[in-house]
Amino acid sequence: MDNFILNKENEIYYECGYSCDNVIFLSIEGEKYFITDGRYTLDAKQNAKANVITTSNLLKTVKEIILKKRAKRIIIDPLNWDYDSFVSLSKVTTLKQIKNYSHQKREIKSEDELKIIKKAVKKGAKAFEKFKSEIQTNLDEFDLSYRFKEKLTSRGRNALSFEPIVAINENSAKPHAVVSEKKLHKNDLLLLDAGLKYKRYCSDRTRTISINSEISMSKIQKFKDKKRQKIYDIVLKANEEAIKAIKVGMKISELDKIARKVIEDAGYGKFFIHSLGHGVGLDIHEWPYVNSRNETIIKPGMVFTIEPGIYLPDEFGVRIEDMVCINYDEKVEVLSEYI
Amino acid sequence: MDNFILNKENEIYYECGYSCDNVIFLSIEGEKYFITDGRYTLDAKQNAKANVITTSNLLKTVKEIILKKRAKRIIIDPLNWDYDSFVSLSKVTTLKQIKNYSHQKREIKSEDELKIIKKAVKKGAKAFEKFKSEIQTNLDEFDLSYRFKEKLTSRGRNALSFEPIVAINENSAKPHAVVSEKKLHKNDLLLLDAGLKYKRYCSDRTRTISINSEISMSKIQKFKDKKRQKIYDIVLKANEEAIKAIKVGMKISELDKIARKVIEDAGYGKFFIHSLGHGVGLDIHEWPYVNSRNETIIKPGMVFTIEPGIYLPDEFGVRIEDMVCINYDEKVEVLSEYI
Repeated sequence: MDNFILNKENEIYYECGYSCDNVIFLSIEGEKYFITDGRYTLDAKQNAKANVITTSNLLKTVKEIILKKRAKRIIIDPLNWDYDSFVSLSKVTTLKQIKNYSHQKREIKSEDELKIIKKAVKKGAKAFEKFKSEIQTNLDEFDLSYRFKEKLTSRGRNALSFEPIVAINENSAKPHAVVSEKKLHKNDLLLLDAGLKYKRYCSDRTRTISINSEISMSKIQKFKDKKRQKIYDIVLKANEEAIKAIKVGMKISELDKIARKVIEDAGYGKFFIHSLGHGVGLDIHEWPYVNSRNETIIKPGMVFTIEPGIYLPDEFGVRIEDMVCINYDEKVEVLSEYI
Repeated sequence: MDNFILNKENEIYYECGYSCDNVIFLSIEGEKYFITDGRYTLDAKQNAKANVITTSNLLKTVKEIILKKRAKRIIIDPLNWDYDSFVSLSKVTTLKQIKNYSHQKREIKSEDELKIIKKAVKKGAKAFEKFKSEIQTNLDEFDLSYRFKEKLTSRGRNALSFEPIVAINENSAKPHAVVSEKKLHKNDLLLLDAGLKYKRYCSDRTRTISINSEISMSKIQKFKDKKRQKIYDIVLKANEEAIKAIKVGMKISELDKIARKVIEDAGYGKFFIHSLGHGVGLDIHEWPYVNSRNETIIKPGMVFTIEPGIYLPDEFGVRIEDMVCINYDEKVEVLSEYI
């Protein structure tokens, strides 16, 4: 059994079912230690499947445990630790560096995790539906975003996966669009990218919709503007062809290539400026990354997004994002198609 | 002129008036470089007082610049960099480690910064006032917190300094209280700790109030329960005596001792479980820390909180927090007293 050390909230939650914002987690010869400060002792003892140790100096206590247990080799992710702490730890044991150690472990979800994620996605899709009636012309992106978050969080009772993107017309062409005072008008294009957390697991979904008399969150959209419709249909085709192609045993990079080919063949390759998708779980971005370089083989238990996009600077952008899961019977399920 | 390298959003904003969530900042012989990815190029060029360089591999580009400029010695904060990046940078130059390098620089605010902070605190205090009419019995902590945030952010138009603490009765005794479904009743004690950001600078304020017919956010509170009133009055005395004592030229540790003595003399020393306060600026917690070990001398331009508290487990907690600034004429100004 590997010895390892963690300091990230979600990575620790994954190991012992509880976490907080000031904790170091140690697994030594299968014994688990949750080292935190006095504010969290009670909650941790009730919820963490680990030995809870309270201290005012986490790193010092961790080093004492390592020395006491004579742990000779501990796996650590060098991307997660500041230089100072890393050097300090390296003085009491041999640190074996493995980048993305926890991401790697969490790439395949258990059946229980899949259930939770499906519930998160359903709740997310429902929030998109509830938001429909709030979309009114003359509201600005701030207003729209606020009302959207109201639905996503049930007025603050659950967390967002990330700060939603709510972008009108040319703002939707900016891949890092932040909300502005730009107002919504009839026949506008509105890009909505949002998700919520359920039992700490994230949902993620993007719809690009047309502001006409019948607002819909489905992937079938009718734009008055011909160019918008043309671009939309290309992105939709890329989304659908990639989803259709998903199969256990294939390389995940193939998916990016399939979607990219649709967009390239239509002449818009240089406007698809990001990779096709990413894994989703406790983190909103995790393994497997769906890009042209990832040679990972698709396996049951994987959950990832398919989100092709075309961004025409100063005009508009279209992105259509679904979350997909590979069930244990090898069936591919498109989670965010729920309406 | 010192060469230095930064990777934290607020630290970089401080140097060049703009920042984003994927940037490395270099200052070499007085030349400033803002190294970011394509998503931020346009905004950075418009707003950052620095040479903006776009790249898909930040660290690689930074190393190229360091080599090209032959920068022999660069200051770095080892607490801010992951081990992997630090080691990578150390291969192209000599890194001089200074912990809290930027915090140190930002401890004394300029007159312009003081103006912005005062505005932030006024807006924060106004939000407390606006929230008064929303406080109703039978709402739970989730509801109250949501309505409070609605006022603090003007429905999402500005950012919070941190997730507010909204805690009723025994929940206020938990120093890391998270909102729950606990409902508010007449004569309850309600602890409110919250702040907002204005031009990226934070406000911070705590009031512990009594839920009676006339709700007030002032420091004068009347509790029906005698024990609550007694504890409240002790904390208020600690707050007021520490504030009264603030003077340019004294050690900041003295303030913690003064407040702590009031609480100790009343017999509640062991229930004042945190230090007296912290600096506030671009970060909600920054230098100077107001604790019994900080020998820093109080100087014009400092901004910090005074927030004594007494926490009686399973009963209730009281904290009264004000932000204080030392003006350039050496006058001490209590910012959050605004009503």
